[in-house]
Amino acid sequence: LANGPGDRARTAIEGRSPARAPAARCSFLLSQGPGTPSKQQSIQETTMKFLHTMLRVRDLDAALHFYVDLLGLKEARRRVDEKNKYTLVFLYAPDDEAVVQDSMKKTGRDQPMVELTYNWDTEDYGEARYFGHLAYEVDDIYAVCDKLMKAGVTINRPPRDGNMAFVRSPDKHSIELLQKGKPLPPQEPWASMPNTGHW
Amino acid sequence: LANGPGDRARTAIEGRSPARAPAARCSFLLSQGPGTPSKQQSIQETTMKFLHTMLRVRDLDAALHFYVDLLGLKEARRRVDEKNKYTLVFLYAPDDEAVVQDSMKKTGRDQPMVELTYNWDTEDYGEARYFGHLAYEVDDIYAVCDKLMKAGVTINRPPRDGNMAFVRSPDKHSIELLQKGKPLPPQEPWASMPNTGHW
Repeated sequence: LANGPGDRARTAIEGRSPARAPAARCSFLLSQGPGTPSKQQSIQETTMKFLHTMLRVRDLDAALHFYVDLLGLKEARRRVDEKNKYTLVFLYAPDDEAVVQDSMKKTGRDQPMVELTYNWDTEDYGEARYFGHLAYEVDDIYAVCDKLMKAGVTINRPPRDGNMAFVRSPDKHSIELLQKGKPLPPQEPWASMPNTGHW
Repeated sequence: LANGPGDRARTAIEGRSPARAPAARCSFLLSQGPGTPSKQQSIQETTMKFLHTMLRVRDLDAALHFYVDLLGLKEARRRVDEKNKYTLVFLYAPDDEAVVQDSMKKTGRDQPMVELTYNWDTEDYGEARYFGHLAYEVDDIYAVCDKLMKAGVTINRPPRDGNMAFVRSPDKHSIELLQKGKPLPPQEPWASMPNTGHW
């Protein structure tokens, strides 16, 4: 379960100034204005939008402590089904609130969400590398990692570059954190902190 | 790897009219206008936004045939790293184009994306129930399932209710499809088609 080359080399990708590099790579995308779908799209394609990524968790309290209390996601809605013995919790990132609201207004469904599925049983959901991670952009990557570390979360890939970090949820889901805007100046204890485990 | 109770009972959740039910469940969310973060958020919380879900794929051509040619996702950008022998492809849903563009303008990073990581090796990435699925809302769930079925994709959970279907990618990632707006009227061959396998 070691990280593959596509994981190891991510620093080179994400270390570039995000204000310039991705914009250049996405030039074809930005050449189309919003609300003006191409002729091909409107005629030939069934349109679709992303709604959520669903992850299963074994301990809902532990999962919510990680995602809500520590990472800062917000709970949008929850369904508790006592007959079928499961709970679904939908979470979104604070900066996505306007997108969530706009999506609700347009089609009655919220995006982009993480859906946590908690079945009230004792199944071990395992882990496999076919799932990679969820990625979030944060205002202050050092502040987020500091909060996580003080709460006992291992910073598997510390933000040595002031730009990128990886941690894992209680259910072993990898979470990538990326600094908003330019990378922060290198800062201890992160700058000299080695990697721990895999992610 | 059978589906758990939280999966089996999803029809009851998603079968309700999406224009009413989720709105009621999200009433607290909609009470805040966009661009007006709560005092608690601006003072105490590090804000963040969702960027992408990363999934690893063994055969990039097969994965792109499924996600782009059949499902209809669009490629936003790609990174080919010949030295470290990997390729990253970022995909988004057509209806998310305005959100993607707005995200790029605001912080230089695109959301919401699916990142496919293709390491040029022969590793088997396996599967595990800790990853659930990606969910997309589609304009015509019958048309999408018909296109997939004719291309040889198993419709694991056919849209018997005109509202929800599950399929799996070549790398065994489950994809949930949900009908935009109200469920479509029941229609053959879907109405009488049984489930196949798990998802």
